[in-house]
Amino acid sequence: MILSPGDTIGILGGGQLGRMMAMAAARLGLDCHIYAPDAASPAFSVARHHTVGAYDDAAALAAFAASVKVITYEFENVPVASVEGLSTLVRPAPPALAVAQDRLAEKAFLADCGLPVARHRAVDSAADIADAIAELGAPAILKTRRMGYDGKGQARLTADTDPAAAFDAIGAAPAILEEMIPFTAETSTVLARAADDRTVAYDAPANHHADGILRRSVLPGPLDPTTEAAAAEMVAAVAARLDYVGVLAIEWFVSADPARPLIANEMAPRVHNTGHWTEDGAITSQFENHIRAVAGWPLGATTRLVDITMQNLIGADADDWARHLENPAARLHLYGKGAHRPGRKMGHVNFVGRPVDSSAKG
Amino acid sequence: MILSPGDTIGILGGGQLGRMMAMAAARLGLDCHIYAPDAASPAFSVARHHTVGAYDDAAALAAFAASVKVITYEFENVPVASVEGLSTLVRPAPPALAVAQDRLAEKAFLADCGLPVARHRAVDSAADIADAIAELGAPAILKTRRMGYDGKGQARLTADTDPAAAFDAIGAAPAILEEMIPFTAETSTVLARAADDRTVAYDAPANHHADGILRRSVLPGPLDPTTEAAAAEMVAAVAARLDYVGVLAIEWFVSADPARPLIANEMAPRVHNTGHWTEDGAITSQFENHIRAVAGWPLGATTRLVDITMQNLIGADADDWARHLENPAARLHLYGKGAHRPGRKMGHVNFVGRPVDSSAKG
Repeated sequence: MILSPGDTIGILGGGQLGRMMAMAAARLGLDCHIYAPDAASPAFSVARHHTVGAYDDAAALAAFAASVKVITYEFENVPVASVEGLSTLVRPAPPALAVAQDRLAEKAFLADCGLPVARHRAVDSAADIADAIAELGAPAILKTRRMGYDGKGQARLTADTDPAAAFDAIGAAPAILEEMIPFTAETSTVLARAADDRTVAYDAPANHHADGILRRSVLPGPLDPTTEAAAAEMVAAVAARLDYVGVLAIEWFVSADPARPLIANEMAPRVHNTGHWTEDGAITSQFENHIRAVAGWPLGATTRLVDITMQNLIGADADDWARHLENPAARLHLYGKGAHRPGRKMGHVNFVGRPVDSSAKG
Repeated sequence: MILSPGDTIGILGGGQLGRMMAMAAARLGLDCHIYAPDAASPAFSVARHHTVGAYDDAAALAAFAASVKVITYEFENVPVASVEGLSTLVRPAPPALAVAQDRLAEKAFLADCGLPVARHRAVDSAADIADAIAELGAPAILKTRRMGYDGKGQARLTADTDPAAAFDAIGAAPAILEEMIPFTAETSTVLARAADDRTVAYDAPANHHADGILRRSVLPGPLDPTTEAAAAEMVAAVAARLDYVGVLAIEWFVSADPARPLIANEMAPRVHNTGHWTEDGAITSQFENHIRAVAGWPLGATTRLVDITMQNLIGADADDWARHLENPAARLHLYGKGAHRPGRKMGHVNFVGRPVDSSAKG
């Protein structure tokens, strides 16, 4: 499936990722139709068409699918059954979604692709938690298997934690317990894979989280060129196994242990917050490359042009917009969300630094 | 008037300039309401609100004005009376529109601001044309006073031209005859002026026209730094006289005559085709700076980052989109117009070259 300018891409999900995808599509002469349950979805404001509908409304989804040439998503928690039932081509294909929706399945899949992952155990009860801590040691991280993002559904357990209270705190839902990785840095590989199987990867930033939410991505990042290339190869292998079309991100722990310098933490079958720097720091943004891939078009160059720091504007951070406008190095991105509340991603700022000396690159 | 994120800007005109302005606004968290007579206006696809209405429909314009915080325009041929009748603040203010709509008034105004302009005479009849040619010499350029753009309403007259036929060819409308300037290059100053009177100017490209339509803008351009700064000062003077808020462009002939190295050719009270390179070559694009100005916000840096060539995709040029996607240095912009026809601007490509050596700049 190769689209032509003027064709329409369907996007499931109407948040900031869908919004930035729709803007990238518009620049390339492609229209978007956004499907999302919330009538105040930020992506609606920049797309030619939108539908307010629930992700399990089969009739509304069918009408949406009939109106577009190809469908993609900005949100990995769209029900797999809804996506599988669509009559229109979905890129990336539903198996990527299924894998990413279950932390246990995801870890097994990544390990099977040859990626190092944290030791972990499935836990379905307080008793399982006690057994898993005995096996993996403490501290350890308890995470719900499904519907987690931005640190939601996670808890750090110590040897003193009451397993029953911990299990209740995450909603007594199916979960996994992971060993605590003593990482020296966090990074991520954002890779795009085209319908013709070619891949391109962006430079891997140093990612800084607080309270489970990404705060900053800093380029250049923490990896030496050999390790960075190895990370990109592993993500390309994952993408190939899924016959993936679009942008795929894997977050890594960088470990001091030379036996496993990189440990895969999470996979996101979509454009990723740690790739937002690409809008102002790379020749082609992650959003444009996702749209190019979904359209069946060739990918654009991912060359990084400048040193750059992406900073998320979370909750009341967005009140600083006027200060960022005064900074000549700051590129402000606001998502058009109405009220801010704690933890809500309202926008981001890319602080553009020195040009990359291309003559010095390998 | 200072807008806040979430506020709505009204834009009169729904073409590619309005489209790119709306995308710049969205990135900054501002909504747009586009008002245009054509239901297939390209800007509608990327704006939160739109109204299909005639530029002289007072009721529709009043409803539009009531829905927005401030109004701007992408098109200088909006009737001045319509704009003057609006109850909402218009930026740039209507006098800029009035001046730009009449070539004779524009030349008088620019000359009064101290800008060199071509010698010219008003002509309202075939007899006037003969008199003007006798005075200015031949060849000379006949231009309608109103509603001209992209070379429309213009004709090159020689000593052999029949004045009556020439006058009929431009519709026997009020016109001016201009001396032919033996220019060595064409350039333009694209300047933004904020509500606090501060101005920023972009580097001046070498502009290449064919058949009256801009084909390419090439940076670095033809001016030495002193002349380029003088040009920007002249445009700042024009903007100050109009108490202008927004982006203002003046096109210049570069002359070999040392007595008048720059001759002002045309003024555009809006973002300008010769500024499209700024989307991929400057820290802040002309579209973002126009929106910042209209919003009452501070302007962004205009620093040029790379050598760059903007090429318009006119008519069937747009069929080359797939070839441009294969070029890693090409940044493709398509306007979402349906069918192409000769002379229609369908998109543009920015060819990104070498980084500007900022240490070498004055």
